[in-house]
Amino acid sequence: ARNGYPEVIYGAGKTAEQIIEIMHTLKKQGENVLCTRVSPEKYHEIALDEPNVKYFSEAQCVQLIQHEIQLTSDYIAVVTAGTSDMSVAEEAVATAQMYGNQVKRIYDVGVAGIHRLFEHLDEIRKAKVVIVVAGMEGALVSVVGGLINAPLIAVPTSIGYGTNFGGVTALMTMLNSCASGITVVNIDNGFGAGYSASLMNHLGTKENLD
Amino acid sequence: ARNGYPEVIYGAGKTAEQIIEIMHTLKKQGENVLCTRVSPEKYHEIALDEPNVKYFSEAQCVQLIQHEIQLTSDYIAVVTAGTSDMSVAEEAVATAQMYGNQVKRIYDVGVAGIHRLFEHLDEIRKAKVVIVVAGMEGALVSVVGGLINAPLIAVPTSIGYGTNFGGVTALMTMLNSCASGITVVNIDNGFGAGYSASLMNHLGTKENLD
Amino acid sequence: ARNGYPEVIYGAGKTAEQIIEIMHTLKKQGENVLCTRVSPEKYHEIALDEPNVKYFSEAQCVQLIQHEIQLTSDYIAVVTAGTSDMSVAEEAVATAQMYGNQVKRIYDVGVAGIHRLFEHLDEIRKAKVVIVVAGMEGALVSVVGGLINAPLIAVPTSIGYGTNFGGVTALMTMLNSCASGITVVNIDNGFGAGYSASLMNHLGTKENLD
Amino acid sequence: ARNGYPEVIYGAGKTAEQIIEIMHTLKKQGENVLCTRVSPEKYHEIALDEPNVKYFSEAQCVQLIQHEIQLTSDYIAVVTAGTSDMSVAEEAVATAQMYGNQVKRIYDVGVAGIHRLFEHLDEIRKAKVVIVVAGMEGALVSVVGGLINAPLIAVPTSIGYGTNFGGVTALMTMLNSCASGITVVNIDNGFGAGYSASLMNHLGTKENLD
Amino acid sequence: ARNGYPEVIYGAGKTAEQIIEIMHTLKKQGENVLCTRVSPEKYHEIALDEPNVKYFSEAQCVQLIQHEIQLTSDYIAVVTAGTSDMSVAEEAVATAQMYGNQVKRIYDVGVAGIHRLFEHLDEIRKAKVVIVVAGMEGALVSVVGGLINAPLIAVPTSIGYGTNFGGVTALMTMLNSCASGITVVNIDNGFGAGYSASLMNHLGTKENLD
Amino acid sequence: ARNGYPEVIYGAGKTAEQIIEIMHTLKKQGENVLCTRVSPEKYHEIALDEPNVKYFSEAQCVQLIQHEIQLTSDYIAVVTAGTSDMSVAEEAVATAQMYGNQVKRIYDVGVAGIHRLFEHLDEIRKAKVVIVVAGMEGALVSVVGGLINAPLIAVPTSIGYGTNFGGVTALMTMLNSCASGITVVNIDNGFGAGYSASLMNHLGTKENLD
Amino acid sequence: ARNGYPEVIYGAGKTAEQIIEIMHTLKKQGENVLCTRVSPEKYHEIALDEPNVKYFSEAQCVQLIQHEIQLTSDYIAVVTAGTSDMSVAEEAVATAQMYGNQVKRIYDVGVAGIHRLFEHLDEIRKAKVVIVVAGMEGALVSVVGGLINAPLIAVPTSIGYGTNFGGVTALMTMLNSCASGITVVNIDNGFGAGYSASLMNHLGTKENLD
Amino acid sequence: ARNGYPEVIYGAGKTAEQIIEIMHTLKKQGENVLCTRVSPEKYHEIALDEPNVKYFSEAQCVQLIQHEIQLTSDYIAVVTAGTSDMSVAEEAVATAQMYGNQVKRIYDVGVAGIHRLFEHLDEIRKAKVVIVVAGMEGALVSVVGGLINAPLIAVPTSIGYGTNFGGVTALMTMLNSCASGITVVNIDNGFGAGYSASLMNHLGTKENLD
Ligand SMILES: Nc1ncnc2c1ncn2[C@@H]1O[C@H](COP(=O)(O)O)[C@@H](O)[C@H]1O
Ligand SMILES: Nc1ncnc2c1ncn2[C@@H]1O[C@H](COP(=O)(O)O)[C@@H](O)[C@H]1O
Ligand SMILES: Nc1ncnc2c1ncn2[C@@H]1O[C@H](COP(=O)(O)O)[C@@H](O)[C@H]1O
Ligand SMILES: Nc1ncnc2c1ncn2[C@@H]1O[C@H](COP(=O)(O)O)[C@@H](O)[C@H]1O
Ligand SMILES: [Mg+2]
Ligand SMILES: [Mg+2]
Ligand SMILES: [Mg+2]
Ligand SMILES: [Mg+2]
Ligand SMILES: [Mg+2]
Ligand SMILES: [Mg+2]
Ligand SMILES: [Mg+2]
Ligand SMILES: [Mg+2]
Repeated sequence: ARNGYPEVIYGAGKTAEQIIEIMHTLKKQGENVLCTRVSPEKYHEIALDEPNVKYFSEAQCVQLIQHEIQLTSDYIAVVTAGTSDMSVAEEAVATAQMYGNQVKRIYDVGVAGIHRLFEHLDEIRKAKVVIVVAGMEGALVSVVGGLINAPLIAVPTSIGYGTNFGGVTALMTMLNSCASGITVVNIDNGFGAGYSASLMNHLGTKENLD
Repeated sequence: ARNGYPEVIYGAGKTAEQIIEIMHTLKKQGENVLCTRVSPEKYHEIALDEPNVKYFSEAQCVQLIQHEIQLTSDYIAVVTAGTSDMSVAEEAVATAQMYGNQVKRIYDVGVAGIHRLFEHLDEIRKAKVVIVVAGMEGALVSVVGGLINAPLIAVPTSIGYGTNFGGVTALMTMLNSCASGITVVNIDNGFGAGYSASLMNHLGTKENLD
Repeated sequence: ARNGYPEVIYGAGKTAEQIIEIMHTLKKQGENVLCTRVSPEKYHEIALDEPNVKYFSEAQCVQLIQHEIQLTSDYIAVVTAGTSDMSVAEEAVATAQMYGNQVKRIYDVGVAGIHRLFEHLDEIRKAKVVIVVAGMEGALVSVVGGLINAPLIAVPTSIGYGTNFGGVTALMTMLNSCASGITVVNIDNGFGAGYSASLMNHLGTKENLD
Repeated sequence: ARNGYPEVIYGAGKTAEQIIEIMHTLKKQGENVLCTRVSPEKYHEIALDEPNVKYFSEAQCVQLIQHEIQLTSDYIAVVTAGTSDMSVAEEAVATAQMYGNQVKRIYDVGVAGIHRLFEHLDEIRKAKVVIVVAGMEGALVSVVGGLINAPLIAVPTSIGYGTNFGGVTALMTMLNSCASGITVVNIDNGFGAGYSASLMNHLGTKENLD
Repeated sequence: ARNGYPEVIYGAGKTAEQIIEIMHTLKKQGENVLCTRVSPEKYHEIALDEPNVKYFSEAQCVQLIQHEIQLTSDYIAVVTAGTSDMSVAEEAVATAQMYGNQVKRIYDVGVAGIHRLFEHLDEIRKAKVVIVVAGMEGALVSVVGGLINAPLIAVPTSIGYGTNFGGVTALMTMLNSCASGITVVNIDNGFGAGYSASLMNHLGTKENLD
Repeated sequence: ARNGYPEVIYGAGKTAEQIIEIMHTLKKQGENVLCTRVSPEKYHEIALDEPNVKYFSEAQCVQLIQHEIQLTSDYIAVVTAGTSDMSVAEEAVATAQMYGNQVKRIYDVGVAGIHRLFEHLDEIRKAKVVIVVAGMEGALVSVVGGLINAPLIAVPTSIGYGTNFGGVTALMTMLNSCASGITVVNIDNGFGAGYSASLMNHLGTKENLD
Repeated sequence: ARNGYPEVIYGAGKTAEQIIEIMHTLKKQGENVLCTRVSPEKYHEIALDEPNVKYFSEAQCVQLIQHEIQLTSDYIAVVTAGTSDMSVAEEAVATAQMYGNQVKRIYDVGVAGIHRLFEHLDEIRKAKVVIVVAGMEGALVSVVGGLINAPLIAVPTSIGYGTNFGGVTALMTMLNSCASGITVVNIDNGFGAGYSASLMNHLGTKENLD
Repeated sequence: ARNGYPEVIYGAGKTAEQIIEIMHTLKKQGENVLCTRVSPEKYHEIALDEPNVKYFSEAQCVQLIQHEIQLTSDYIAVVTAGTSDMSVAEEAVATAQMYGNQVKRIYDVGVAGIHRLFEHLDEIRKAKVVIVVAGMEGALVSVVGGLINAPLIAVPTSIGYGTNFGGVTALMTMLNSCASGITVVNIDNGFGAGYSASLMNHLGTKENLD
């Protein structure tokens, strides 16, 4: 990791032991470390070994902070359609914060009750980058995309049933959006959205990433 | 056809000769006749034989009227996302009118420019039944569905490219909509939407269909 | 909820605690509440907190009634192909009843033994709206659709194996039906069918929904 | 070909010259020859070379008869849902006749107007083997399958649009049929159905095939 | 059930209690009863209530015999590619025997060691009907189909991994077979194959089924 | 269009007349106009009416410039895998330039000859935003993504055959990339990539877009 | 190209002019050149410019030979199921020969008439590498794979209809083959098979490729 | 097994008892035996019966050695993208070693950190055959393929989430690779890759396999 940049471990399919081992190495190098996709059980094992870690249960992320993180003055807005999309959104938040971004959460503003979205529109419009997280049919992405001028990163989630096909329907909705300025990441990929949003949020600033 | 109910011919894959022959039989029975999916070329052949027919080129429909159609006082709103969805919408309109329904068109109000939708919201809300026709990602259905209380019939169209998969993406969006009160028909099936809307628009009225 | 209209909670993926919390809020507002997709275990937790709820185990629905529901005189017919489709059908029934609709169940009349369908045809034909619930190949929808003139809402179920693809085959059958007057909802979406049927059943009546 | 058994050429993707050449060889061997999937244009080229051939335009088949065909006393019923399925059905008929089977056609009896099917039920029930040819949603197969006790060969056709997916929807319907006694062939495979039906129709008879 | 014809219960998704109840009814009517898709656990519950039933553990079938079954003199050959396909094959065998058919098993003769198939070719060729059960790539069907003249019913199984897609690959192989005389049933549908084979095996015999 | 922002017309499925009409309206408003997906034939019709337009034949874009465009000092790199991806890349270039971005093209640097990529790495690394356009298996995206720290917009193209599935394979490759900082647009969507890249390239600059 | 190794141009989607230009460059470098996917029309244009080229019409390949090719003593067997697979097979042959391999063709030995395969088994078994080209259900690959010990490269072709899905069915058959020693290339990729076979055929020989 | 060639048992879906039984038979014949897809639990049961077996836990393979294996002097390189692909890679290694091949492992050299690949390039280039194992987007295959001249066998793994579709995305990437000399096996098929690599590694050597 260049210049105190955090390191990220992808925790899925790794045992607590494997995660601890990688963490040790990175700790010695003085890095901040983020580990995603960590179940509560694995977290408890990790915490026994390394009590300084912090757990974000909704995000399923473990954080090890060794030097302070400087936050940007511009912020990333993280918007969700429903409460069930929150876990993926929180992975994006945890990632973005780890990379030094100020974040604002605007949750549960799906299009079935579109008035709630309009109540938060100002806050969304002031963001430098917007992440929209949605499952089921993912229509929120098109609506937000039509209302803002910032880059919008769309994250489809696997929330839904029947023909949601584990998130494929939301993904396809987002890729085919009639609104401009939208790019898309893999299903449930909160990390990827948070990481790309951070790259964009640091563009043209003193706080530029590298 | 019961009680002066119109007869419908599905013109796709039929030659002009075949259509003319079926029309002759129905004409003798005194029916009004609608023929869908008729290209301009086929229409011209048909018109040579039967000059009383009327052609709706956008809808690709041929109409033969033998007795006057009584329109309902309640109306069906037909809403489209883009101008490219118009052909499918017009098939729905032609069908609904043939079955005696008053229809209002609200076209080109897709979510990329959502203010246009809000300008027409009153007119949509006063409809007894609403048909929404959309291609690409089909998000308009969820937005309208969240704003009205009438039954909404969603028609996915094959408009788009790449991962629109010939309309499948719009269809999936509509089936997974987070708004309530939405039912769906096959891709590009304007006829089916117009027919079902007519059944609903006649419910509980003197003008009841049969 | 307008005018004593019931509120609906989608229980899947929510904990008993989350459901109880939402229910409390709605209870204070004096609403009738329906919660769908509730397992027996979750129901028992909810009942400890709120003993006035009623559980419909086949439908997997929890009901909280705070003011009496007025039933329509017209009825919705809910028709199933097999006994395995019953759970989805009951979700439709619970929803429709909650919204004040009289309902008649006609179960297990699949086309493999079509005589059973004909025995109940009169009762189906007298319905103002018909819901048909079917898994496997879903052919019952086309047969019923060809025999009635009321709007038909088709609900594919995930019942079957091999190439039923979790309900996709039944869904495709229904979308491609050669009978007219059919609209379709998502796989296993009993709630959506019940809700849309209620909108239609209230059309043109004093009991009109809003 | 054993014992005067006809030979079959699959004409698709072969030039008229290639077909003529194969036909010459078989003619010298004294065989009856059937060539399927032959366009009118190709037929005309073939007929210039070999004037004894007979063309079945609906079936798109060319026949060369060199010794008389003995027909079975039992018959195969070939049933279609719509008129557009006729071309595939005729390929089945041409094949079955070539292999010495008596055939009865019962066309255009789809479930949207199920009364027409019942008018012909006796004739279908007396068949030793039944072929059902249907596109769109293919529901006719389940209905016929529930009403008869003979082996039923189901042929999905590519007729339809949108989510018919070139016949895949009808195929899936047929494979998942809730009626017993049904087996299925590839989309538009009239030849395969006719051939298998012939094998079955000759079972247990003096006219047994080999 | 006509004339002592057995009744079949589809056990999947039914509780032991539900199966017992249906069995009681059928027992009173004096029928032979076959119940498919019964796990050992369910069987033990059923056997407590009805000790006369017999369990076929490989086939996962329960049999209740109340009057003797007369076997055909012609036989059905049931051929499998691998040992893992045996469970589906045995469902076909149990079904065919229940309907009065003599059956010969030729197992584990897949094309990777084609010599084993040739050792049994005579026995396969003497069958009146042949069922071929295969998973993975299902190539055995084409090989057997090219070597025999009897009707061949192909049963794809869900055996395999990766791109076998739960049996879809084997199914597609069978539907596209370059050999003639093959018809296909749903993935893992041993019952359907056994039932259809029985219909064919009884054609043209005194033992004719109805 | 705010502040002299260009307007974009999606030319696919519109006639030359329709395009000309929209262009007239926008011209009167003094806008710069970009029209994408315009065939040479359509361009010639348009040019007869409006001789000031300029055609970019590789990009299939028509441009109408009414006031000078100020270019950014930071640039967008547009990278392609093969020469066949050039048409999509040029649509991205035309869009980005229209929106006032300096663009550098690095074409034909696919991974089959990876040394060519390394020759241009410096130029790619100095870009503020990188667009990677690739068909077939799309692996170039992962390689470039692993080598840079700028936001990368991946554009799958429909170039390839067999299992490229019209670009779906490249799309899936890109969505599943093991490199970080990648977001994706629809297949062949050069416009969307150019537009989003422009939003990002203007972040934090005086030249900020709105 | 190292050491007189031929260069290959992928002709699909390139104009005759583009091909000629690339050929000129390679000609100056003294290379042998192969251009695949060249239609007869394009060939004629190329031949006007460069009369020394040779056209292989079945393979759709153009060859420019500038120095003699040394053939291996070991040979590659190229086996096809049907005559329609020949074009793909010939692309493999042209490629393999260009790279200095002796090739033997064994065509039209599909499993529907398996005796023909056995007649050529010795010749296939003596090959150092075997390419099997098959469309429809592709079963030939498994049969040959079970009979030989050389590496087998399987090439699915897009030959077939209905559920062959443009070659996907044959591809899946080959990937799931129960025989060992089989690897697979993309649908219709004769070039890829010929190239890989050449790499293998040169292993461990003086004629080793580089 | 010819000439002391090892025998391989596919352990998936077999009980420990079934595996032991087959092993006994092969042991009596004096063969070396490899059993793949064996869980630790099954291994322990097998080891009770046959203590001479050796277990490779990462590969999930059981080995029974009865006569010494002679290793080739040329080696097979087994390359993986990530650590999660190791289990599939080890199945390939265990297979290749069993068949007498020297193997070199080059693990965790995925394209997100491409410098690691270049550090090992010499070792990969000296291999006679290369196996590349990769999940997610599988881009490593194209990169390695572009850098070497040996035959490359690509093994897609099911590692990843969302649109990795259980390995299908990696498989498609590999089949569509723009690099030459690549052939592909089924998802997670380490055995198949090891077996085919062994066939190739023995080509043209005294150690030739049969
Ligand atoms: N939740 C996540 N989803 C996708 N990629 C991730 C996630 N978390 C971490 N990563 C990526 O995985 C890399 C680490 O992978 P590994 O070396 O397997 O731990 C990180 O550098 C990130 O690029
Ligand atoms: N555009 C259409 N899309 C779907 N179904 C249609 C359409 N037009 C007509 N139909 C249906 O097709 C029936 C007539 O089919 P046919 O007898 O083949 O002409 C009508 O009664 C309608 O149910
Ligand atoms: N294993 C099976 N697979 C498919 N269908 C079956 C199977 N077993 C029984 N059936 C069919 O299911 C019917 C009984 O269904 P049910 O009334 O739900 O028990 C029987 O008459 C058979 O047609
Ligand atoms: N028919 C073919 N199918 C797949 N790849 C091919 C084919 N012909 C040539 N190629 C590959 O395409 C490369 C040349 O591509 P290009 O530079 O676009 O002409 C060659 O080096 C081969 O690797
Ligand atoms: Mg926007
Ligand atoms: Mg609504
Ligand atoms: Mg109807
Ligand atoms: Mg039947
Ligand atoms: Mg045969
Ligand atoms: Mg990067
Ligand atoms: Mg072999
Ligand atoms: Mg290479």
